[in-house]
Amino acid sequence: MNKLYVIKIGGNVLDDTHALSDFLKKFASIQTPKILIHGGGKIATKLGDQLGLVSNYVNGRRITDEPTRDLVTMVYGGLINKQLVAALQGLGCNALGVTGADGNLLKAVRRPVKEVDYGFVGDITPDSVNSTLLYFLLKQNVTPVFAPLTYADSTILNTNADTIASVLAISLSKHFDVRLIFCFEKKGVLRAVNDPVSVIRTLNSHTYQELLAAGALTDGILPKLENAFSALQAGVREVLIGDALDLIQNTREETIGTLITK
Amino acid sequence: MNKLYVIKIGGNVLDDTHALSDFLKKFASIQTPKILIHGGGKIATKLGDQLGLVSNYVNGRRITDEPTRDLVTMVYGGLINKQLVAALQGLGCNALGVTGADGNLLKAVRRPVKEVDYGFVGDITPDSVNSTLLYFLLKQNVTPVFAPLTYADSTILNTNADTIASVLAISLSKHFDVRLIFCFEKKGVLRAVNDPVSVIRTLNSHTYQELLAAGALTDGILPKLENAFSALQAGVREVLIGDALDLIQNTREETIGTLITK
Repeated sequence: MNKLYVIKIGGNVLDDTHALSDFLKKFASIQTPKILIHGGGKIATKLGDQLGLVSNYVNGRRITDEPTRDLVTMVYGGLINKQLVAALQGLGCNALGVTGADGNLLKAVRRPVKEVDYGFVGDITPDSVNSTLLYFLLKQNVTPVFAPLTYADSTILNTNADTIASVLAISLSKHFDVRLIFCFEKKGVLRAVNDPVSVIRTLNSHTYQELLAAGALTDGILPKLENAFSALQAGVREVLIGDALDLIQNTREETIGTLITK
Repeated sequence: MNKLYVIKIGGNVLDDTHALSDFLKKFASIQTPKILIHGGGKIATKLGDQLGLVSNYVNGRRITDEPTRDLVTMVYGGLINKQLVAALQGLGCNALGVTGADGNLLKAVRRPVKEVDYGFVGDITPDSVNSTLLYFLLKQNVTPVFAPLTYADSTILNTNADTIASVLAISLSKHFDVRLIFCFEKKGVLRAVNDPVSVIRTLNSHTYQELLAAGALTDGILPKLENAFSALQAGVREVLIGDALDLIQNTREETIGTLITK
């Protein structure tokens, strides 16, 4: 099968002009089929403040009320997404910016109200993906760029960008040999949290269990690793956690971030 | 050749919840390949006011400075475009919202500075259109929904929605038998401006010249008609000017708006 890179960037790249410009150049230069998923960034919060929106949190999690839904639709689906697409076009990469509503690419289920009503939030599974259209776009040498938005019942919904990346990677594993790359602010998963060069270069479920048993992993990285192993269980070939600046090296066979396999 | 409808709606439909909902139901029900182009609407102005943006005008034309470019990218490319797409998906129409940057669908030339610097404004011609990708999308039963935005030199540009509709219609006339439909607030081109039922049902360049010579047309409609005849000269089969509420009738052989042919 052909290779496909599913690459996620978050606020730490989006909010840093130089890091973003460097990342986009590297991303555009990748000749293999690829998909970009971007998160939010400080600009949504800043614009929300300017518009006098009050953020509501329950148990530390932000609630997407109607004004917030419209804000993220504008900022994630409009401003950030189209700036990325225009920049990538300028770099010779035929990017196509989308939300999950576009082309029915990611049809969510609105999160059911239990103890908490999260508002306009969409939950997705690999079955949510219109992989036929995605596959077709990739074959046309188009690079889909996903905003962290899905839809259900005629409305846009807020959805976690890491989840979108995982779900896309899993769904496209039937067509491609997928490496799912999470770009974050460190070189990789660290053996010693205060030592930035103590990157664990490879991990599998066996070595992961050993590190867990030794208490060697910080709480912050655990959800990312659990997410990575779920993706591998569901058919993704490899997951890489690394620095956006190291993108090129991390698309090679010999990587410098943390390469995670089953 | 197969038929294609290229349909443009403006602020008068977008700003009226009931008219918009009615229009979208009718649009979604059209089984023939179709493209939607939407304009702006009051929401951009309202949001600009809330953000304290000051609009600059030269000779009555608004200048797209950098904050305005970002505002229209958010509102046209994000909020309005994605709300339309989510609504159409809910109606069973597989809409895909785009700007000209997406998929390199409309590559503009930034308007050169002469007496006036219009700022971030893009000029386009039928050669600006990536009709190959558009044709493929239409063949996949996808309905492109265009925001009035194009791009050049890695940045989003503001572009008139009527112009985008015309240019798309002309470019796609090599693949389809195109009817270009401009929805506006009247039933059609009126013979007597104060008589809403005095619709001129058909027009061609011959009858147009007669009406011009008789001074029977108001200034407001002239640019639309010139635009229509240019599109016809460039290969578009038919142009229709009519009310959004009459969309279904205006997609039939027997129309109730003004049907313009060469």
